[in-house]
Amino acid sequence: MASERVRVGILGASGYGGAELLRRLLTHPFVTVSGVASRQFLGQPVSACWPQLVGVSTLEFDNTDAVIGGCDVVFCATPHAETAPLAKKALDAGKRVIDLSADFRLSPEDYELWYGPHPYPELCDRAVYGLTELHRDELSGAELVAVPGCNCTAANLALAPLAAHGLLGPDITVTVITGVSGAGRSASLGFHFPEVNENAKPYKAAGTHRHTAEIEDTLGRVRAYGRQVRTRGDFAKPTVSFTPHLVPMTRGILATCTTHPDTDGLSDEKLLALYRGFYDGEPLVTVQGDLPQTKAVCGGDRTLVSVRLDGRSGQITAFAALDNLGKGAAGGAVQAFNVALGLDETAGLFTQGVWP
Amino acid sequence: MASERVRVGILGASGYGGAELLRRLLTHPFVTVSGVASRQFLGQPVSACWPQLVGVSTLEFDNTDAVIGGCDVVFCATPHAETAPLAKKALDAGKRVIDLSADFRLSPEDYELWYGPHPYPELCDRAVYGLTELHRDELSGAELVAVPGCNCTAANLALAPLAAHGLLGPDITVTVITGVSGAGRSASLGFHFPEVNENAKPYKAAGTHRHTAEIEDTLGRVRAYGRQVRTRGDFAKPTVSFTPHLVPMTRGILATCTTHPDTDGLSDEKLLALYRGFYDGEPLVTVQGDLPQTKAVCGGDRTLVSVRLDGRSGQITAFAALDNLGKGAAGGAVQAFNVALGLDETAGLFTQGVWP
Amino acid sequence: MASERVRVGILGASGYGGAELLRRLLTHPFVTVSGVASRQFLGQPVSACWPQLVGVSTLEFDNTDAVIGGCDVVFCATPHAETAPLAKKALDAGKRVIDLSADFRLSPEDYELWYGPHPYPELCDRAVYGLTELHRDELSGAELVAVPGCNCTAANLALAPLAAHGLLGPDITVTVITGVSGAGRSASLGFHFPEVNENAKPYKAAGTHRHTAEIEDTLGRVRAYGRQVRTRGDFAKPTVSFTPHLVPMTRGILATCTTHPDTDGLSDEKLLALYRGFYDGEPLVTVQGDLPQTKAVCGGDRTLVSVRLDGRSGQITAFAALDNLGKGAAGGAVQAFNVALGLDETAGLFTQGVWP
Amino acid sequence: MASERVRVGILGASGYGGAELLRRLLTHPFVTVSGVASRQFLGQPVSACWPQLVGVSTLEFDNTDAVIGGCDVVFCATPHAETAPLAKKALDAGKRVIDLSADFRLSPEDYELWYGPHPYPELCDRAVYGLTELHRDELSGAELVAVPGCNCTAANLALAPLAAHGLLGPDITVTVITGVSGAGRSASLGFHFPEVNENAKPYKAAGTHRHTAEIEDTLGRVRAYGRQVRTRGDFAKPTVSFTPHLVPMTRGILATCTTHPDTDGLSDEKLLALYRGFYDGEPLVTVQGDLPQTKAVCGGDRTLVSVRLDGRSGQITAFAALDNLGKGAAGGAVQAFNVALGLDETAGLFTQGVWP
Repeated sequence: MASERVRVGILGASGYGGAELLRRLLTHPFVTVSGVASRQFLGQPVSACWPQLVGVSTLEFDNTDAVIGGCDVVFCATPHAETAPLAKKALDAGKRVIDLSADFRLSPEDYELWYGPHPYPELCDRAVYGLTELHRDELSGAELVAVPGCNCTAANLALAPLAAHGLLGPDITVTVITGVSGAGRSASLGFHFPEVNENAKPYKAAGTHRHTAEIEDTLGRVRAYGRQVRTRGDFAKPTVSFTPHLVPMTRGILATCTTHPDTDGLSDEKLLALYRGFYDGEPLVTVQGDLPQTKAVCGGDRTLVSVRLDGRSGQITAFAALDNLGKGAAGGAVQAFNVALGLDETAGLFTQGVWP
Repeated sequence: MASERVRVGILGASGYGGAELLRRLLTHPFVTVSGVASRQFLGQPVSACWPQLVGVSTLEFDNTDAVIGGCDVVFCATPHAETAPLAKKALDAGKRVIDLSADFRLSPEDYELWYGPHPYPELCDRAVYGLTELHRDELSGAELVAVPGCNCTAANLALAPLAAHGLLGPDITVTVITGVSGAGRSASLGFHFPEVNENAKPYKAAGTHRHTAEIEDTLGRVRAYGRQVRTRGDFAKPTVSFTPHLVPMTRGILATCTTHPDTDGLSDEKLLALYRGFYDGEPLVTVQGDLPQTKAVCGGDRTLVSVRLDGRSGQITAFAALDNLGKGAAGGAVQAFNVALGLDETAGLFTQGVWP
Repeated sequence: MASERVRVGILGASGYGGAELLRRLLTHPFVTVSGVASRQFLGQPVSACWPQLVGVSTLEFDNTDAVIGGCDVVFCATPHAETAPLAKKALDAGKRVIDLSADFRLSPEDYELWYGPHPYPELCDRAVYGLTELHRDELSGAELVAVPGCNCTAANLALAPLAAHGLLGPDITVTVITGVSGAGRSASLGFHFPEVNENAKPYKAAGTHRHTAEIEDTLGRVRAYGRQVRTRGDFAKPTVSFTPHLVPMTRGILATCTTHPDTDGLSDEKLLALYRGFYDGEPLVTVQGDLPQTKAVCGGDRTLVSVRLDGRSGQITAFAALDNLGKGAAGGAVQAFNVALGLDETAGLFTQGVWP
Repeated sequence: MASERVRVGILGASGYGGAELLRRLLTHPFVTVSGVASRQFLGQPVSACWPQLVGVSTLEFDNTDAVIGGCDVVFCATPHAETAPLAKKALDAGKRVIDLSADFRLSPEDYELWYGPHPYPELCDRAVYGLTELHRDELSGAELVAVPGCNCTAANLALAPLAAHGLLGPDITVTVITGVSGAGRSASLGFHFPEVNENAKPYKAAGTHRHTAEIEDTLGRVRAYGRQVRTRGDFAKPTVSFTPHLVPMTRGILATCTTHPDTDGLSDEKLLALYRGFYDGEPLVTVQGDLPQTKAVCGGDRTLVSVRLDGRSGQITAFAALDNLGKGAAGGAVQAFNVALGLDETAGLFTQGVWP
């Protein structure tokens, strides 16, 4: 039985995305973690990097070549720009790649606009965007999965039903409140505890955050094609204004998205029904009447979604809450991996958040 | 000298607003705190209620009549609806009233719409809205000051320059991130530490929060009359969509306000210059190029304001950060009190926040 | 297969202990949750109480009789004093009881000393103390398990190796740093977010905390009988001084325990070896050289233990870190349940904490 | 009047100690801040470093020579080892020095033991230990003040009354819970928000923390000489075991100190009376019956002290709470400065903490 398990390797396993991949993959019923790589911790046991793994795992950090060589599927939790060459190497060696970085989420043209020239534009066509709820069909058998950015998963799951039903107005404002772990494990003044604690601050406002591209991309795609979409294609994109905010919590993303479409005949009930229909049967998206809160999905892999109509102003406000390291990263990645390999979609995942 | 000090009394001194009034008024150079009232702590020393006052003050909680009787000016930090009768009593006794509750912020008609019938509509005409930056002239000599709500101070200071310059678009969205102390000192499940910590949650969304009325009121007034305005009058009001969010911090309000006006010819620099002009000479509002963060004003009485143009979407995003218990409550109240009594506007106030 | 699962009921399922039992038991491979009881939420779905269960479970809260009647094993996460009658009812109906309250942890004599007269002293003899590491043999087949208090599990796992090796000095000081969830889900001023955040405070100092009795009990037992002990018996108890501290975190207990025995010939290495020997083979206690931290076990069911000798002062300091709701409550309870029923000891448990 | 103000310079003004010195000294009634130095921010306005000073101060960071040259008194908030040469330069130029670093707290012999060889041992004799409550007489006119470490101020204020009354037992255990700001403003993994939040961890346990020397020094001195002591002299020192713990808060130190002396005839009341007598008349130390909590002194300059007898175990537990950046650093420094210069002892200080 163990020999039939999928061997997975994790690159960048010393970052938070890597830690959360390990939490899911070490207990995944159909997987064996065959190797983990980290430049910084090369040759050391995973417990040297991760206190929660002392006494749990005897894995040691290896180099990327060894990890790629020893596995069937590579999870890349490495920084953008560094990832593309690793992904190419793995693909060339016949491995599948689940990429948590930004390197294959956009078309080469859009990538150039927001990040700079793409080193392997030819690979982009092989990539499938890993937002399972919208790309499930296409993900089946995918060899290169581009796992969405955490903000994008939240914004797009909140707004997709509106996009699909022609309910995006000319203005689309995405305001995100995010925990600090989204910035990664590299210490810097901006994430030093005394600077973050008891502080709320906006950053990369007014269209400067790169996740804007992904949000516009997906909303345009859903607006053009409906719920099950494909990664590449020609379609018009809406313009989105995205403002992220950092608050003193470790995990969690709450997206509050507003737009002013024609709301004639709409009501909270109709909007909720429309959302429930859109996400009917989804194992990891729950539409609820109450406004969602991040704690309800903390440590877990679901997204909670709700929507409200402000009758006074004609504004629709759509909300999504997820764990940026769960559904927003490692959980979303494992979900897409499960679909790509034909496994049970929620295997290894946590549907229940850790409350309190 | 001490005999020339203004004798002030504080009603509701066992709430957070009361504590912050005490921090400012006990060290205010022109004031003596002559009495404090609290039903819950009647007859007990203030230190029984406030651990930070053990060994600092020997004041004892008295009943409201005694406190009103013994002072020149009454600060009301009591709940809305309970406050109006107390204010009436104090005014009838010839005392001035600085009211931190919602009871005199709106016209009787608007009050009825959002809170229910006003018990003393005739008093409303005597009230001056205590947002000093916009009502300074009118506040001089005022006998009844209605201190603005914390969210309103933030939203209105962020948006007033746009209102004054015809830069409010048809959509005005106010997204607020707020600390928990804004909810007061009464324990309830929603503010129980384990429920709030590591949690971000929206509440009273889609036009249901009562502060909406105050925001629309002030924006309409400034749009109609410019910077120095009066509390009552006829003017058209814009419609605002307000969404507050609770995050795991004790203090601080960050308002992120968006609108899509005609932005032809605008730039970040022009917007900042316009803001700097609007707030020129203000001692407690600072316009800055960097995006504001709440920690910079924590424990203090200033508001930091900034503004950005998103050229891609034509959205203007205006930001304000303040301490909800400082400029958003006790600090704003003492500022208006100083102006009403002709004292140095910043006497007893803290211009510098407590960092970190 | 499903019919062979053990049917478990949870009383007090609307408290934090109940929530964490649900997180483990709803995914436990050998268990079906047959019912949950809560007076406050009677008749409502579990999701009305627990936002993390919206869309996850369709269980509804029932009354205690129905829950007891419908299960094989009852978990009591009810307050002390309320629990004993429920346990009696369940035992009389032939059910096994896993009790997370304090009602069966002490002998009737000690219970009277710390809590008052015991309502069912005759039941106490049937109870097995549920600290699996020390009572594993005795737990097999147990019908009434008294799950230890969270502070006690931490202190006793830290000090038991010293007790077993004659290394308790005349002074035993247990200093505990604890998260707020240990106080339960009932809102009160002492646990109101703004009062707890940015605050460290001692409470119930100087021998007034009831957990002192349990700590002395277990240390005396281990000192007298070694590692595998029995719940009742005659043995001398040491005197312990216990000082708990509340800090601004939701979960976690860190016990720092000091004593000044004869340390001749000891060293850090020898002490660690002694600890490793004592806990050899334990699945949920890990002895480590580094000082333990609570985050490493957050959301999980292990205890991390370490020990240091201060050569200058001859003081031994023993440390233990655990999650007060995990190994300190629900996790410890499920572990004891597994052993009592002959199931895999870690079934349904989380050996890996949630980092960050 | 302004010309009679003391000109003070601050070295290391870009660290947290510097920020808190600025908060006190910019509003100090008898002081003008004549210059601030920081290598990292040389030539930049203070607001480039400190967001809370935008619009408050137009000071610019200068080099150390210029700052020393332009002032009467230098505050050194620079790292240990770097400070001694700066202090020498300032003393040689006839300036007084208030040193917040560790460079002049110990005798040259003890310094060598804990830190390495002292670069200017001859200066040590001119230093006065700046714990004002115990060295007030000696501080008057002092030219070089060694401000105590934050942990030492807490532990020594908690234990000094016991030392003075022969109530230190053979075991003295100091357990400290500390906020993160004590570690300074340099970002590193150990103080990265996601690693610290929801985490309690001990560090430098078992006699390895350098503050141990200072604690033993002062306790020995008080035991030998009583309340008003001198910095240098011959006396026996007790041995102290010190264990600090980091918890998720920015500010605050809570010291819980235990010892087992002969407690015959003692009671809580007698101990409290003894403490009240010892600190009678102290403006910045308050003895209270309730256990102290750090929030009560957050942002302020007082220390709250209490004490308990555990009759069961004969243990005395002494508690002290202070703000590590207030009384534990900048506040203690300004207090000693005031005394050294013959100013009002609490000028520029905050006796009231910021609650909540």
